[in-house]
Amino acid sequence: MPTISHKGRNMPESPIRKLAPYADIAKQKGHKVYHLNIGQPDIKTPEVAIEAVKNIDLSIIEYSPSAGYESYRKKLAQFYQRQNVNVNSEDIIVTTGGSEALLFALATITDPGDEIIIPEPFYANYHAFASSTSATVIPVISTIDSGFALPSIEEVEKLITEKTKAILICNPGNPTGYLYSETEIKQLAGLIKKHDLYLIADEVYREFLYDGDDVHFSVMNLENVQQNVIMVDSVSKRYSMCGARIGCLITKNKAVLATVMKFAQARLSPPTIEQIACEAAIDTPQSYFDEVISEYKSRRDTLITELNKIEGVIVTKPKGAFYCIAQLPIADSDDFAQWLLESYNLNGETVMIAPAKGFYSTPGMGLNQVRIAYVLNKKDLISAVNILKEALLVYNAKK
Amino acid sequence: MPTISHKGRNMPESPIRKLAPYADIAKQKGHKVYHLNIGQPDIKTPEVAIEAVKNIDLSIIEYSPSAGYESYRKKLAQFYQRQNVNVNSEDIIVTTGGSEALLFALATITDPGDEIIIPEPFYANYHAFASSTSATVIPVISTIDSGFALPSIEEVEKLITEKTKAILICNPGNPTGYLYSETEIKQLAGLIKKHDLYLIADEVYREFLYDGDDVHFSVMNLENVQQNVIMVDSVSKRYSMCGARIGCLITKNKAVLATVMKFAQARLSPPTIEQIACEAAIDTPQSYFDEVISEYKSRRDTLITELNKIEGVIVTKPKGAFYCIAQLPIADSDDFAQWLLESYNLNGETVMIAPAKGFYSTPGMGLNQVRIAYVLNKKDLISAVNILKEALLVYNAKK
Repeated sequence: MPTISHKGRNMPESPIRKLAPYADIAKQKGHKVYHLNIGQPDIKTPEVAIEAVKNIDLSIIEYSPSAGYESYRKKLAQFYQRQNVNVNSEDIIVTTGGSEALLFALATITDPGDEIIIPEPFYANYHAFASSTSATVIPVISTIDSGFALPSIEEVEKLITEKTKAILICNPGNPTGYLYSETEIKQLAGLIKKHDLYLIADEVYREFLYDGDDVHFSVMNLENVQQNVIMVDSVSKRYSMCGARIGCLITKNKAVLATVMKFAQARLSPPTIEQIACEAAIDTPQSYFDEVISEYKSRRDTLITELNKIEGVIVTKPKGAFYCIAQLPIADSDDFAQWLLESYNLNGETVMIAPAKGFYSTPGMGLNQVRIAYVLNKKDLISAVNILKEALLVYNAKK
Repeated sequence: MPTISHKGRNMPESPIRKLAPYADIAKQKGHKVYHLNIGQPDIKTPEVAIEAVKNIDLSIIEYSPSAGYESYRKKLAQFYQRQNVNVNSEDIIVTTGGSEALLFALATITDPGDEIIIPEPFYANYHAFASSTSATVIPVISTIDSGFALPSIEEVEKLITEKTKAILICNPGNPTGYLYSETEIKQLAGLIKKHDLYLIADEVYREFLYDGDDVHFSVMNLENVQQNVIMVDSVSKRYSMCGARIGCLITKNKAVLATVMKFAQARLSPPTIEQIACEAAIDTPQSYFDEVISEYKSRRDTLITELNKIEGVIVTKPKGAFYCIAQLPIADSDDFAQWLLESYNLNGETVMIAPAKGFYSTPGMGLNQVRIAYVLNKKDLISAVNILKEALLVYNAKK
């Protein structure tokens, strides 16, 4: 048999997908499974986007330009400018999802063995994208006690070596829901300037903030370090269009853009129809976002209130995105998550959670933590957390 | 300034895109440019696919499964089975274009420095995909004298080293239009079996054959080597849906599939709406293909007849796809292609051609060759070749 690459063998399995067969077993038994494990929102896509698809006026589904339609890039730049984010259309390359933007960014700046520093816990696929491009993830641990704030800048600096090419953050964070302050972003800016590194910011949850005083500070608004900054964004969450696979990479660094463009040309173009939908989506009325944010805020409040009622559970209130990391009174959340699906039900219902181990790169971290996505309605969230509470009693009693 | 990766710097520029600014200049002068350089067909997308988009019944554009919708994979398998190609739905992973399928295949089987043997001239982006994954392309030269047939199997075998992981072919070929015979494919199968390599076949032009007796022999129908075979396909050309960005990777090798699946999970999913369009496209009536093939056949015949009228031009009749390589009585097709756009016009019209250098990996090859795509109607093809003929006289007279 011919062999599989080391790169392929080292690619992490999806930490969530490996539980899928157990969810299937639960469903085959007739049990209802509340999915607290996924990031697929139940929020409707804006009607302007769906209507643009239905009214499509094409007789040939042709390639778009490799950088995306110019009309879309122009409207997108205006969208950012309305948010006072410093982006022009020529700074943007449209990508096939935020995923491809991250892949292009890493391929553009790293060679095999180069290092990327990422505060952990982090979005599990950062590991996969780094593996794809043969770069190494160097984690810096943020803790639940500090609400997953940025570790001290000295701790981050200690990890910088000759191989370090970038610091990668997700703001607000998946899986933590933490929102980096302007001060924290500026501390990182000082560090990348000092060591001539890149700062890559995944800002796909930028609109999802729930506390009135909080403001998202984009890396595009940093002064004096724009040659070191790469921003990644996506329509997936903003318009509940995860399946559109339209994202973008934004930078003022022309050498980075020119190199990303070579990768973009090799894959020809991002999807045509979905880009047309995204261009239309930019006209989504503010009332849509007001409703969505208000809904998520009350889901977050409900979830955190309910979780705090469970003895032994530690959780910090997420400031943004739609996830939180909860610490449970258990030793092994992989085992617990599997047991919930395989062996437990409360009146024919159970829950699926994402063990947090997959969001850490440091061995042994996150074993008693899980990620909970609040993409269910409040009634279901209350039911799901109640099942979790009862399940913990049964699980811990049997040990 | 922070640095760009070696990988990024080594990524080839698109051999066609670098002429784009000169085409813009020609157009600014008011000159009409006949595009013989591109692979974007002017053929309409089947109505069933466009109608499926217009009638879309979704309120949320959700992620699809990472391997693609099961319903689409099942219909796709039936499509292959009707063509007597040995494919089951569980052998298929739906990808974002054939491009992503090639990237996944190379990432799954190569580590940095590993080698892929490719008969040249070859699709320029194979080089880019290999660069992306830090693999090395080892070309084996096929010549215009033999119509770009497979070089002798001994010549291919001589290039195999400890680092060789695969042989990659495009069948029928872009840019050559050559159709590998069953005998040639079986010779390659013998070689990959003997040396335990992979055979990757890009079969995206599989339906585009123009001579009655010719039959496409898919690598999926090879016996006794299925663990070594990976097939790549796409809807781009079949349904003139280049902008859909839907392709697939097909293999019977479960270890390869499982690894490709990890890359697929990391990028979450292929585009949702476009997959729905592709599923509908499988019901395209045979009459559509009959018309398309008949149209391309007569375009090919027209193009070759007209090219053969030009003194000093050597061209072999392509058997499939919609390209040919033509050898011109010039020394440097890069210079000629640029001159055509920048300095020449015949009654206000000129042509854009793709210099063949970009389709070779061996330095110095293809300098007097160009790739011509016959994706224009016959009248335009005749006008374009006439311009080429007159331009060659002027170009050669000035030297």
